[in-house]
Amino acid sequence: MILILYDSYTGNTELMAYHIAEGVRNAGQQVIVKKVDDATLDDMVDADAIIFGSPTHFGMMTSKMKMFLEKSNDIWGKLDKKIGAAFTSSGGISGGNETTILSLIQVMLIHGMLVTSPPGRYGVVAIDKPDKKVITACKKLGGRVVSLLKESVGIS
Amino acid sequence: MILILYDSYTGNTELMAYHIAEGVRNAGQQVIVKKVDDATLDDMVDADAIIFGSPTHFGMMTSKMKMFLEKSNDIWGKLDKKIGAAFTSSGGISGGNETTILSLIQVMLIHGMLVTSPPGRYGVVAIDKPDKKVITACKKLGGRVVSLLKESVGIS
Amino acid sequence: MILILYDSYTGNTELMAYHIAEGVRNAGQQVIVKKVDDATLDDMVDADAIIFGSPTHFGMMTSKMKMFLEKSNDIWGKLDKKIGAAFTSSGGISGGNETTILSLIQVMLIHGMLVTSPPGRYGVVAIDKPDKKVITACKKLGGRVVSLLKESVGIS
Amino acid sequence: MILILYDSYTGNTELMAYHIAEGVRNAGQQVIVKKVDDATLDDMVDADAIIFGSPTHFGMMTSKMKMFLEKSNDIWGKLDKKIGAAFTSSGGISGGNETTILSLIQVMLIHGMLVTSPPGRYGVVAIDKPDKKVITACKKLGGRVVSLLKESVGIS
Repeated sequence: MILILYDSYTGNTELMAYHIAEGVRNAGQQVIVKKVDDATLDDMVDADAIIFGSPTHFGMMTSKMKMFLEKSNDIWGKLDKKIGAAFTSSGGISGGNETTILSLIQVMLIHGMLVTSPPGRYGVVAIDKPDKKVITACKKLGGRVVSLLKESVGIS
Repeated sequence: MILILYDSYTGNTELMAYHIAEGVRNAGQQVIVKKVDDATLDDMVDADAIIFGSPTHFGMMTSKMKMFLEKSNDIWGKLDKKIGAAFTSSGGISGGNETTILSLIQVMLIHGMLVTSPPGRYGVVAIDKPDKKVITACKKLGGRVVSLLKESVGIS
Repeated sequence: MILILYDSYTGNTELMAYHIAEGVRNAGQQVIVKKVDDATLDDMVDADAIIFGSPTHFGMMTSKMKMFLEKSNDIWGKLDKKIGAAFTSSGGISGGNETTILSLIQVMLIHGMLVTSPPGRYGVVAIDKPDKKVITACKKLGGRVVSLLKESVGIS
Repeated sequence: MILILYDSYTGNTELMAYHIAEGVRNAGQQVIVKKVDDATLDDMVDADAIIFGSPTHFGMMTSKMKMFLEKSNDIWGKLDKKIGAAFTSSGGISGGNETTILSLIQVMLIHGMLVTSPPGRYGVVAIDKPDKKVITACKKLGGRVVSLLKESVGIS
């Protein structure tokens, strides 16, 4: 099962989460989409892969997302070698979207997760409302994570 | 007046804040040291320079610090061209201290602040409890920010 | 005098350099624009402020720019407290333009430079050829650096 | 086969490369260790996983390493989903070692590589000459990459 864990203010990041989920399902894998308000640490432990999303807020994930992830100290070691990826929506080009993606990736690396990305960038980025190109990128990212899972012994 | 705005869990970052404040005072400038719990946005607006500190937590500032800084949208434009600098304490070498410093610097840049650093690094870093070398670096950073303020027309 | 030091492959970053230079001149300050191939370390030492530009190449400045900046070990201490800023042109949104800007800013911080940015972002970014909005942002950045210089005692 | 591709000035990064190689061999996998001067793009294409190392130089990989990696545009798509990791040696704590590691990781992400790290940090870091702790971390990283390869269908 793949977990898509996100925070959203305007609904744009949420929309991306649902498009990524569709990509996961199209590739034949189960998916759970959870806003950070409703998520538990067990959701992360139970998942085979986790795709994290957050709006771009001052060049990093939202404080709510960060607050949730800080608790992940309690599940130290349990995310090791799980596949992870990141996405964000942002109010403008070059207004911190890359560093927001990287703030999520840094958490994954600290947990020893295996980080993947859409080739050519660090994660999927929407400027304002996701357009067609972004929606395609979202679905592709979902499919990509599934393909990586299938290539692993653990799943197949 | 220089504001030192920090968050602290173990007391190490707090200790750094007080050493930086001493450096500011030694250089003949007034300083206010505030833990993020007690700070207001007006504290930031009123300051001529702001030195931000946070423990290293998953490679970035604490969620509490981030939550406070997110509110700074309300004082947009009012930090423009103020001098800023950053410090952090961390549980280990290369465990995210540089990216924590950078997470603070990114907020400063987005606000149009003028970012300064101790030459040779991005900010002052303590590994665990601040040792003599770190304490010296803290005092120096305080003095450095004062010297930059004095060179500005606004203060002198 | 303000130095604009850049590398360019397609000519887009070069174009930005010239627009920033115009912003500097419009604000009444002298400016020298140099491609990295023609620049010397003395150019940096002689400048009151330095604005660095590089194409986005694998999420950081070009190797040619990096090679030049590595030599700046020889002028250690001589860039201290000089004002600096950064710009980049990139082939796509979120393809590494922010981290390219940050790679330049990191060098400035290590040299103890005072880093400024266009409020709202880390530096000026063009996606492909600079459009009207980017050209305006370039001119503004030039003017901004001049206004910061004028507020310093050293220049005026 | 695992490729360890590194640059080195003082010999410290090179030493790390050899310790990582030992970790790879101990885990029963073939390894090739190449200084960037001697490496070809084919070395990267032929490898099942690539571990990149560079000294910390102004907060990022050396220009020589960057120059080599810029050529990797020519093998676009051929590193997709290969496992990657990074290491660096640095002259001081918090002097840019994390951002050097991240500069290498960013290249991996842009190529669509699967990034792994020693849990707790972004990559293995030596401050000056690798000490016992660092040597252990190097060997562990080598072993970790092998274990990830073995869990993949492609290798086993």
